[in-house]
Amino acid sequence: MTQSIYSNYPPELSAAQQKFLVTAVKDWAIQNGLAVRPSPAIVPAGTDQNGVLATNAPVTLFPSPFPRTCFDEATALQEIYNELYASITCNEEWLGDIVKGLIEVDDFVANLWKVHLAVKKEGYVQNLSLGLFRSDYMAHVSATGDPALKQVEFNTISSSFGGLSARVRQMHAEFLTSPPGPSINYPFHPLLHSEVPPENPAVETLSSGLARAHEAYGVSKSTPALPLCVVFVVQATERNVFDQHALSEQLKKVHNIPVFRVASVDVLEQTFIPSDNSARPLLYRPPHSPESTFEVTTLYLRAFYSPDDHTSSRDWDARTHLERSAAIKCPTVLNQLSGCKKVQQVLAEPTGLDHLSAFLKGVDPSLIERVRSTFAPQYDLSANSKGRELALNPETAMNHVLKPQREGGGNNIYKSDIPGFLQSLPESDWMGWVLMELINPAANAQNVALRNDGEVLRGDVISELGIYGTILWEDTGKILHNNHGGYLLRTKGKEVNEGGVAAGFSSLDGVLLF
Amino acid sequence: MTQSIYSNYPPELSAAQQKFLVTAVKDWAIQNGLAVRPSPAIVPAGTDQNGVLATNAPVTLFPSPFPRTCFDEATALQEIYNELYASITCNEEWLGDIVKGLIEVDDFVANLWKVHLAVKKEGYVQNLSLGLFRSDYMAHVSATGDPALKQVEFNTISSSFGGLSARVRQMHAEFLTSPPGPSINYPFHPLLHSEVPPENPAVETLSSGLARAHEAYGVSKSTPALPLCVVFVVQATERNVFDQHALSEQLKKVHNIPVFRVASVDVLEQTFIPSDNSARPLLYRPPHSPESTFEVTTLYLRAFYSPDDHTSSRDWDARTHLERSAAIKCPTVLNQLSGCKKVQQVLAEPTGLDHLSAFLKGVDPSLIERVRSTFAPQYDLSANSKGRELALNPETAMNHVLKPQREGGGNNIYKSDIPGFLQSLPESDWMGWVLMELINPAANAQNVALRNDGEVLRGDVISELGIYGTILWEDTGKILHNNHGGYLLRTKGKEVNEGGVAAGFSSLDGVLLF
Repeated sequence: MTQSIYSNYPPELSAAQQKFLVTAVKDWAIQNGLAVRPSPAIVPAGTDQNGVLATNAPVTLFPSPFPRTCFDEATALQEIYNELYASITCNEEWLGDIVKGLIEVDDFVANLWKVHLAVKKEGYVQNLSLGLFRSDYMAHVSATGDPALKQVEFNTISSSFGGLSARVRQMHAEFLTSPPGPSINYPFHPLLHSEVPPENPAVETLSSGLARAHEAYGVSKSTPALPLCVVFVVQATERNVFDQHALSEQLKKVHNIPVFRVASVDVLEQTFIPSDNSARPLLYRPPHSPESTFEVTTLYLRAFYSPDDHTSSRDWDARTHLERSAAIKCPTVLNQLSGCKKVQQVLAEPTGLDHLSAFLKGVDPSLIERVRSTFAPQYDLSANSKGRELALNPETAMNHVLKPQREGGGNNIYKSDIPGFLQSLPESDWMGWVLMELINPAANAQNVALRNDGEVLRGDVISELGIYGTILWEDTGKILHNNHGGYLLRTKGKEVNEGGVAAGFSSLDGVLLF
Repeated sequence: MTQSIYSNYPPELSAAQQKFLVTAVKDWAIQNGLAVRPSPAIVPAGTDQNGVLATNAPVTLFPSPFPRTCFDEATALQEIYNELYASITCNEEWLGDIVKGLIEVDDFVANLWKVHLAVKKEGYVQNLSLGLFRSDYMAHVSATGDPALKQVEFNTISSSFGGLSARVRQMHAEFLTSPPGPSINYPFHPLLHSEVPPENPAVETLSSGLARAHEAYGVSKSTPALPLCVVFVVQATERNVFDQHALSEQLKKVHNIPVFRVASVDVLEQTFIPSDNSARPLLYRPPHSPESTFEVTTLYLRAFYSPDDHTSSRDWDARTHLERSAAIKCPTVLNQLSGCKKVQQVLAEPTGLDHLSAFLKGVDPSLIERVRSTFAPQYDLSANSKGRELALNPETAMNHVLKPQREGGGNNIYKSDIPGFLQSLPESDWMGWVLMELINPAANAQNVALRNDGEVLRGDVISELGIYGTILWEDTGKILHNNHGGYLLRTKGKEVNEGGVAAGFSSLDGVLLF
């Protein structure tokens, strides 16, 4: 079933059909903010010096089939996953042990830990943490042919594409249902004409999480009281701004909360903590309204997730400055560190301590087993370990991917590249990497993608499903809010190993459940 | 009052304030479809061969003050103006007399008339006409200093910018009210902080008009019955597509009506009238779904409004083909001709027959006088006429504008250019032009515009208010639907004489009533 559903999907497009669909997608995207700022590859330097141009986000023309059992299971597990990563974040000792194994080999992890230690020394003044998470999966085709849900990674910082993904769903749904009656936007196909992509409340879910934190912050800690706001910390050169604006629009319009954007490089200039206020409120003075001062309840980081945002000691100072403030961080440094691949690998270890049950005390054991069954086999590369053996053997390496601690795509080493890559590194650095068995997606899935330069590519694809969740918790472990909702389907051409949508290597997709 | 309100408006912007506002506008525009496709001046040929790029429509950073009395009066008169132009269109003999005076000097008018005559000879099969009109005005500063509403022109075909204008209103309103409390998006100004631009239901009004015609068409005239649709006839190279999509989205989503776009050059290929059906239904076969056939209830022309869309006999054949069909035309050729400047000038003649009262039989005379008082003095250029005298005298010419019959900007001759221009034409062509006294807008109005290339211009401006109206009528004069709602404020730099927003010479604006 899993294989056969893909065999004649998507339907062929005549030249006229493709032209129509591509025009419809291009126009719909701009009409509805399914957009990105173009890269220099599309608009050469000097052409758009005022930065006004935009283009469609890379999207598939068709929604992709995805097994309903896997989609439902991923959805069902999101809140328990939220709880798991909140619980890990609360266990500084356990997390510290993991981190200590990485400090020697991963400067970025080491510096994040230093931020934590510095703030710990001074004393944290905010006991609430907010997580806007995305758990990413593939539908693994098992030996029996049945699809099984396997986790690719769990994102604890800057989980992106909720805003754009909800719009992709809306676009495909409109194309499938308009005009009324049998849709003629697509050639006939039984799957296309019986299903509409499931509702995608990613924007509502993520912004509700931010709103919940804003509310939980309570009254101003300043005297006299200051107006409260949420701040999005963003990259100065961000091109994926419209994804972020989808959330800030919702916060402003639906939740009536002031939202400001502060570039990571401007943090130290535009925000400050009054030295005479031991509650350490984070104050923001908008450069466009210097006579106004807001108190930041919630910091939503869409920057500081990778070493690229920490190129100078000033960047680390900014990070420490935010971390020591009373603002609720989404995420805290500790929560960010819980997203290390090493954590995922330790949780997945089949022998030794049952960390999963320890972190999910009081949770129904059958639910814990369902979480555990989403883990793909993964290994560290310690001396004489199974991981090292699998990675160095060119034959077994073919079935694996090597991942650094970093979130997001762009840094993974695949298959036959693994042994040579490892041998090029000093052995002492190997502990920075985790070896993961490749998940085996449907072999014959296909789709047609419209890149953000307008090129149309048809071919074999691999899809990755992300489920969004939000959680707000106290450092005691007490949970104030735990919710899930909305999804991302990211589909890439098979010849491409990485999944960075914004870079145009892959596309935002819709879901047709089967 | 009229003058003083402008004296300190808009407030000055610091560099940081301008940077913030410009970024906010650029992003809001793309997030919300307040966009246009860029011209070759912005994106050089060869850079975006797939046509994916978009940019913000040209907009003002601030909404412009506009006298409430003028705005209210323009709104109050729209339905009577709708009725007036429906009534003129029903009087083929009267309109024919006007046209006959232009046939010698205006090929475009002559050819439109030929289309009418050809269809009349065969016999019209559709007795309903739809008008989507826009009446354009300025707030004229009279000698007493009070503002008076003066009509610039009345558009009976392709009245554009309803879709984008509604979004400009939404943008300014959001900037003025968000975050909650005193807005800090703008520097403080009493006018900005006491008023929000009035609601702008242009999209609802215009699409309701189209929906009303679709419904009035009745059942399919084909055997067996075909599904019904609305067709937008558009220019193949249109850059202002998102303005049009705002209407088609509303028709599809709210009115549940199938809408298709047909380029004017494709009309003869994609639509046909079965020769064996004397009811002459217009059938449309979508190239992307050649097995489907729809019957067109309503043709909304966003092309064929200027000679540029009629460059070959094939274009005129297409126009005739549409006109002879059973589809309800928005507009018919006769209705398009009623928008000739000559009609406006004849209506405005202070002596001779009272055409206005004749066309508005049964209408309250005081209401007719209010319509009449919106007319600016205007003249034909016949021998020994007052118009000729005013146009040729360099001193009096300075107070006038010379207009051809064409809708829209780009063809007018202003002030000192008038005498020389006329002298360059054979005298026999002068009858093609109408001389109109210049309306005197507030001398010291200012605003700041963001062009669609991102350049920011501050300076003296002139604003033109357009009010949208829709009317559906029978050729007997019976009115089935008459409605108004929504507006456009178009603001141009004073050094610019023309008002073509799409060309980037001028900007879409908001309205602050005072």
